[in-house]
Amino acid sequence: MLTNDQLAKWDREHFFHPSTHLGQFARGEAPQRIITGGEGATIVDRDGTRLLDGFAGLYCVNVGYGRAEIADAIAEQARELAYYHAYAGHGTEAAITLARMVMERAPDHMARVYFGLSGSDANETNIKLVWYYNNILGRPEKKKIISRWRGYHGSGLMTGSMTGLDLFHRKFDLPLAQVIHTEAPYFYRRPDTAMSEAAFTAHLVAELEALIAREGADTIAAFIGEPVLGTGGLVPPPAGYWEAVQEVLARHDILLIADEVVTGFGRLGSMFGSQHYGLKPDLITIAKGLTSAYAPLSGSIVSQRMWDVLARGTDENGVMGHGWTYSAHPIGAAAGVANLALIDRLGLVEAAGRVGAHLNTCMAEAVGDHPNVGEVRGEGMLCAVELVAERDPRRFFDASEGVGAKVVGAMLRHGVIARAMPQGDIIGLAPPFCLTVEEAERIAGVTARAITEVLG
Amino acid sequence: MLTNDQLAKWDREHFFHPSTHLGQFARGEAPQRIITGGEGATIVDRDGTRLLDGFAGLYCVNVGYGRAEIADAIAEQARELAYYHAYAGHGTEAAITLARMVMERAPDHMARVYFGLSGSDANETNIKLVWYYNNILGRPEKKKIISRWRGYHGSGLMTGSMTGLDLFHRKFDLPLAQVIHTEAPYFYRRPDTAMSEAAFTAHLVAELEALIAREGADTIAAFIGEPVLGTGGLVPPPAGYWEAVQEVLARHDILLIADEVVTGFGRLGSMFGSQHYGLKPDLITIAKGLTSAYAPLSGSIVSQRMWDVLARGTDENGVMGHGWTYSAHPIGAAAGVANLALIDRLGLVEAAGRVGAHLNTCMAEAVGDHPNVGEVRGEGMLCAVELVAERDPRRFFDASEGVGAKVVGAMLRHGVIARAMPQGDIIGLAPPFCLTVEEAERIAGVTARAITEVLG
Ligand SMILES: Cc1ncc(COP(=O)(O)O)c(C=O)c1O
Ligand SMILES: Cc1ncc(COP(=O)(O)O)c(C=O)c1O
Repeated sequence: MLTNDQLAKWDREHFFHPSTHLGQFARGEAPQRIITGGEGATIVDRDGTRLLDGFAGLYCVNVGYGRAEIADAIAEQARELAYYHAYAGHGTEAAITLARMVMERAPDHMARVYFGLSGSDANETNIKLVWYYNNILGRPEKKKIISRWRGYHGSGLMTGSMTGLDLFHRKFDLPLAQVIHTEAPYFYRRPDTAMSEAAFTAHLVAELEALIAREGADTIAAFIGEPVLGTGGLVPPPAGYWEAVQEVLARHDILLIADEVVTGFGRLGSMFGSQHYGLKPDLITIAKGLTSAYAPLSGSIVSQRMWDVLARGTDENGVMGHGWTYSAHPIGAAAGVANLALIDRLGLVEAAGRVGAHLNTCMAEAVGDHPNVGEVRGEGMLCAVELVAERDPRRFFDASEGVGAKVVGAMLRHGVIARAMPQGDIIGLAPPFCLTVEEAERIAGVTARAITEVLG
Repeated sequence: MLTNDQLAKWDREHFFHPSTHLGQFARGEAPQRIITGGEGATIVDRDGTRLLDGFAGLYCVNVGYGRAEIADAIAEQARELAYYHAYAGHGTEAAITLARMVMERAPDHMARVYFGLSGSDANETNIKLVWYYNNILGRPEKKKIISRWRGYHGSGLMTGSMTGLDLFHRKFDLPLAQVIHTEAPYFYRRPDTAMSEAAFTAHLVAELEALIAREGADTIAAFIGEPVLGTGGLVPPPAGYWEAVQEVLARHDILLIADEVVTGFGRLGSMFGSQHYGLKPDLITIAKGLTSAYAPLSGSIVSQRMWDVLARGTDENGVMGHGWTYSAHPIGAAAGVANLALIDRLGLVEAAGRVGAHLNTCMAEAVGDHPNVGEVRGEGMLCAVELVAERDPRRFFDASEGVGAKVVGAMLRHGVIARAMPQGDIIGLAPPFCLTVEEAERIAGVTARAITEVLG
């Protein structure tokens, strides 16, 4: 694995990679892959290896690699004006145009969009806005945030606290006290396999009600959730879930933050997950699909109801002291404008729904009968295969066996990138929306082959 | 002020600007300026107004506007490979090369660089690394962070807590409990004007010692500070400050985080403020000057001493669960490589020191004798003019008079952008390093004229 040319050496000696085993990487014991290019759903590394990227980077390169339209927009913006800030009412044509395009696509009751860089910082902005909102409304005690176990909302201190996955808490003293968690809406992992989907939804709602009662509704500001659980396992909600949850939140005057970093701009075959599931959020988090990752940009879309209070807050208190130097960065904004236009022009939202359904169907056919496949599930261009030691009674593998990682490793040897989701043995697929029908079939075939290689 | 064409209207209707008075902006009562281009130290708005940018955006466009070398590098990267992630040992040539270039420039005892997007998220990473470090060392109680009043370290929940400025705390429930503040090393605002610089340094150190004694050194993980206070007022430290502070920190085994988001890559006329003031930090925060803002990128440079513990942590605990999707984004990395090469080629670090000194000299000559100028101070390409109601006895204006903002407004009418620093009546200047001698003189002249217009 150790290659000793200069670039690989610099990589091991100087570069602190995210989400990596630092010791192994530095010693040259861990994978080290330098990517040089890509086209459509395929990437190429510097050894010339071509890989079908079944996870679109980190489910973000939604339009696929090598889009000249976006590269050109970035190049043009870089030449005209790479940067000016957006503080104190400054702006650029790209940022304003993108704000307009986002609001045209967002649910009707939304009013404004704030731009950041990462999904994490957008959720950080969201918490700040929620707290500010309740301070302006004279409810200083209403501040806690409810998140779900297995949610993923970022990797910061507070956003990592909202994340409900052990890997992101361990040794970092998270979650912090301001964040409380409720049960994951994960039907396959319901406490009792005898439970029906409706009974499980009722159980989740009862758990949520109990948590609110225990903490006191007047201490709880907001509930954050991904329309479909992402990093926690690619899990669509059980039937009736969002309707019932929204009823509870409304009754207790708890704001809803829809974290659409993964689902925003088409991944479910709808523009937003909010529209897909009938959510009426107060805040929508966007990132990834906003620019298809061609440049960093995220956002917080704010409802009219919240905006009115925030604007009143500045009338009472002056300028709102919140901003990142690179908020609404022109390069990101230009990428976003080109990306959203391209998604429309190529009909990629519809394609995500259509080819995603085909991927899910092929996958179910290819692996659904394998005795170690507990569930094949998905929605739009998301597909997960959950591996189990035994189907009935449902028995999971021991984490130490690393079965999911082994299957993903076998898939990689056959030229397909999937992601071993961090908690459980879950093979995750979230390809670019331009995935072809043939590529979808190849992914399913390689998954089946890899499962057989690892598990017989 | 209200212009009614479509772009201006979209701006008011859809775009949630950072650090802005939301109510006034939406109603068209606040400035709204759309920037279209720039060259050197000059920007142009869409009405054709040309402004000499005395603050380099938000002290970040260090190489100046319109640099084709960086735009070309961004364009090329966008065409080759706009994005792939850096998780789990993946990388791109641009990110690895930049890591190498950063480490070549950083103090010798530093070992690795982690890349984020914003200065805020880099400081968020820093806190996480500091906590992880003390957990690996088996000191779970050693977690508090000491920051200084008037420090600026970001706008997030924890980073905004480290920030010691009222504007960024107000109505956001900050600072959070994990962060404690000590006195600002601000000689002009020393409690007693009779104090000498040496006596003031001794006072600051005694205050720091007292804080540590009160809280218990075994509860304090790190001290964070900007080599020169930035947003808090552009204040170089009093003589002997850093030497004395470092001695205290070493004695109590408290890590030092040097936040070099403003000072990194040349603003003081040295590559880093750490080298300028003889700091030996455990972490260095970088952003702004890393790419001259041409694309979002930040970083945390980690010392060998910390790295060894972090690497051991992953040997004991597996993969470190920390990362942003856009960590080490190729576009930002390509911009960084081209930017650092350009800084070298044009000798801009030396230029920042030389022209910055000239700016400070001209400024002192132009305004130093005005009865409302309490102090002209600076270091490298940073210069501040502090306005007072009376010089002796030192008496500040009431904040409600907004004197600083008025002077900055008058300067703008004369074509020069300065920044009214948020706390106090402080005219801040932090131009691009390519500022010419003539431009420096023009800034000083316009400052003098504006002060006379506003204050007589
Ligand atoms: C739902 C969701 N929210 C937030 C984030 C955080 O985004 P980022 O990695 O850009 O900080 C992610 C990243 O995967 C995500 O999936
Ligand atoms: C010293 C310092 N640290 C951190 C930051 C935060 O950087 P960003 O605005 O990119 O989050 C700033 C921004 O001005 C800064 O001046």
